[in-house]
Amino acid sequence: MRFFSFVQALLFVAINFNAISLRAQTTNLTVNTERLTAQLKKLSTFGMNEKGGNDRVAFSDYDVQARAYLTDYLEDLGLNVHTDAAGNLIAKRAGKQNALRPIAFGSHIDAVPNGGHYDGNVGVMGGIEVLETLIENNIQTDHPLEFIIFSNEEGAIFGSRALAGKIDPATLEVTTASGYTNGEGIARLGGDPSQVMQLKRSPEDLHAFLELHIEQGNILHKNKLDIGVVEGIVGLKWWDVEITGLTNHAGTTPMNDRKDAMLAAAKFVLAVNEIITQTEGAQVGTVGRIEAFPGAPNVIPGKVVASLELRDLEAAKIAKLFTQIEARAHEIGKETQTQFEFRPIDATAEPALTDVRIQNLIRQNAIGLNYSHKTLPSGAGHDAQDMAVITPTGMIFVPSVNGISHAPEEYSTPEAIAKGASVLLHSILDLDKVNFNSH
Amino acid sequence: MRFFSFVQALLFVAINFNAISLRAQTTNLTVNTERLTAQLKKLSTFGMNEKGGNDRVAFSDYDVQARAYLTDYLEDLGLNVHTDAAGNLIAKRAGKQNALRPIAFGSHIDAVPNGGHYDGNVGVMGGIEVLETLIENNIQTDHPLEFIIFSNEEGAIFGSRALAGKIDPATLEVTTASGYTNGEGIARLGGDPSQVMQLKRSPEDLHAFLELHIEQGNILHKNKLDIGVVEGIVGLKWWDVEITGLTNHAGTTPMNDRKDAMLAAAKFVLAVNEIITQTEGAQVGTVGRIEAFPGAPNVIPGKVVASLELRDLEAAKIAKLFTQIEARAHEIGKETQTQFEFRPIDATAEPALTDVRIQNLIRQNAIGLNYSHKTLPSGAGHDAQDMAVITPTGMIFVPSVNGISHAPEEYSTPEAIAKGASVLLHSILDLDKVNFNSH
Repeated sequence: MRFFSFVQALLFVAINFNAISLRAQTTNLTVNTERLTAQLKKLSTFGMNEKGGNDRVAFSDYDVQARAYLTDYLEDLGLNVHTDAAGNLIAKRAGKQNALRPIAFGSHIDAVPNGGHYDGNVGVMGGIEVLETLIENNIQTDHPLEFIIFSNEEGAIFGSRALAGKIDPATLEVTTASGYTNGEGIARLGGDPSQVMQLKRSPEDLHAFLELHIEQGNILHKNKLDIGVVEGIVGLKWWDVEITGLTNHAGTTPMNDRKDAMLAAAKFVLAVNEIITQTEGAQVGTVGRIEAFPGAPNVIPGKVVASLELRDLEAAKIAKLFTQIEARAHEIGKETQTQFEFRPIDATAEPALTDVRIQNLIRQNAIGLNYSHKTLPSGAGHDAQDMAVITPTGMIFVPSVNGISHAPEEYSTPEAIAKGASVLLHSILDLDKVNFNSH
Repeated sequence: MRFFSFVQALLFVAINFNAISLRAQTTNLTVNTERLTAQLKKLSTFGMNEKGGNDRVAFSDYDVQARAYLTDYLEDLGLNVHTDAAGNLIAKRAGKQNALRPIAFGSHIDAVPNGGHYDGNVGVMGGIEVLETLIENNIQTDHPLEFIIFSNEEGAIFGSRALAGKIDPATLEVTTASGYTNGEGIARLGGDPSQVMQLKRSPEDLHAFLELHIEQGNILHKNKLDIGVVEGIVGLKWWDVEITGLTNHAGTTPMNDRKDAMLAAAKFVLAVNEIITQTEGAQVGTVGRIEAFPGAPNVIPGKVVASLELRDLEAAKIAKLFTQIEARAHEIGKETQTQFEFRPIDATAEPALTDVRIQNLIRQNAIGLNYSHKTLPSGAGHDAQDMAVITPTGMIFVPSVNGISHAPEEYSTPEAIAKGASVLLHSILDLDKVNFNSH
């Protein structure tokens, strides 16, 4: 009976993959908060601007310089570092059994223009802190470890999409916030645009993927919670919206004779807001970029180009909302004597669900370390959503103070970040002991 | 009695200054349509772009090159050419009585970005054609003639405002469409920023000023009329409108938690349109420029900067409309949790009325040449409005096909332009024979 119950217990671990932690003497191990804080501060110096924000947009000189710094740092830790064709910086640590598939984890260091110092950075520096903690505690995992700093997450989720086999030649030609195209940009990072399409990983290539990240929303902070167990990542779609009217002199063209693309754009922005807010659900819709042509105070704009972004956990809902917005735009076009044209931008991300077994494992580690937790979706897109296509994926959130992100005021406390990194550490150790193919 | 009636007739000329033309053998003289057309075509080559428009913005290389060409051309005609401190290119022709005050006429050659080839150019090349016609017909006026190509009309009505004594040091620091400040720009044209404030002309310096210009509206073309007798030029005011919200992540910030400066800007654009169109009158209001910060599709804009322009023939009405717009903007700020700030831009122009005596003179010349005509206001600002502060001023319009202006499609026929130049020619000859100080 005793033997039988031991077999039952083993089966329980393999099948349910949750409640039982295989930590031995590492049970109460946590990361070094002070070192992690100092490392985050160091990283923030690459691209820090006068407003206190960060301009380390993908492929900028700041991005190149920060990657050079991190390459040296990771090599000094004894890791095997290289940059792949997509500009992903990859540091490998051998396992006891190198025939096993690697456990991957990581995030990104590129920022939006005048962004903050935590989005992406926390997962990167938290990942490095996990590696340092393992090294200084002489813990070698069975599986090899693969730590990844993805390229151009903010602009196109480029690096992780390359691993998921989602990059097409057109994406390489898209100009990014740095002024460089994706192709030029990844070459600046040491990648090779001509080889990007060959990078696609298969499910056999990895054991699992984990990403630690700030929430960028206000659920954890508002509810004073430590750890977010991410259940899924919303999908998003982007469009360029071009509105064509007739350029004319602002002084000599009576109000009722105008074909004013700016007036049409204003009605469009309000229509997007109305349609999104009047529909049941947690979807969001944003017009974040706008330009009027020719763009002089004394000229009626004959053209306005704006962006449109829609996000939801269901792809079908995004499609339905877009159909409504497009129909309303064409009505506005008739009212204002302008034409609307929508051009999809290749930054599309399908909604992605994380692996329920890994959700359970993260949750149990939060409980084990005495951290409060909550299961929640991610409204932001992440590299994890593309890694989820290849391998079982989990995501750990730490609170963002006041939910502010993509802004200089973005902040997470050192303690909150260290808690997330400690959960990451134990989740890697647990993943090392399970076999996803056993059932 | 005979003598007395001759005196009466002289007084009639001096006082009513209209019906009687003093043309002698020049009565039916008209300008050379072919030469004028060729000259306009030559000028259009400086700054012509791929879309067929013109990018000869003030102070650009195109502007500098066109002025060099025109300087040579005017010198070859035997005129005395110089550039004043404000970058105005001035060509002088001696009169028979150089103690008399000069008759001034002219316009500008700078364009809005991707503008047309007629706005300003018609008055400049029409003015040169008048000079050539006088020279080849051996007609020397009693008064000296002063032909002026003003600097930066489109950006700040700079050159004529300098002559009116309206430039302040802050205006010199304003960056123009060329990328240069007004100060840097006029230096590029051969001006001297340090001397601009000393340029102010007094009423004693000039006899009168005339400007030939395209209508830039659709009244003359639609009504198949040849000549517009301009009764006044609307005033205009410009503001920079800065809307401050809170920059945040577009995916993680619920719709009801946003402080979206773009949404506020859209409501503002609609409010301007509503207030302007719901008020009785011919006033116009335009938002021609807009920029969102940071300006990425996945970031809720924390700041939007837009332009506001208001125009009307009454300064009090502009002030009243602005008060309404400002009040409505602050309501929008409350609704959207954003702040509105209005910064006046120094491009203000007071409404200006032309001289009624010169209006009559232009009208009589149109009748004498058998051209149809109409008296109308100018919705566009012009150098004439600042010259009107210094000296009796008149303005002659020729039709713009379909009223299109400030766009590549801007067009006036060669015949229409030549008619305007012929009216300018005879108006100069008539002004040469009258004494404004006689009553």
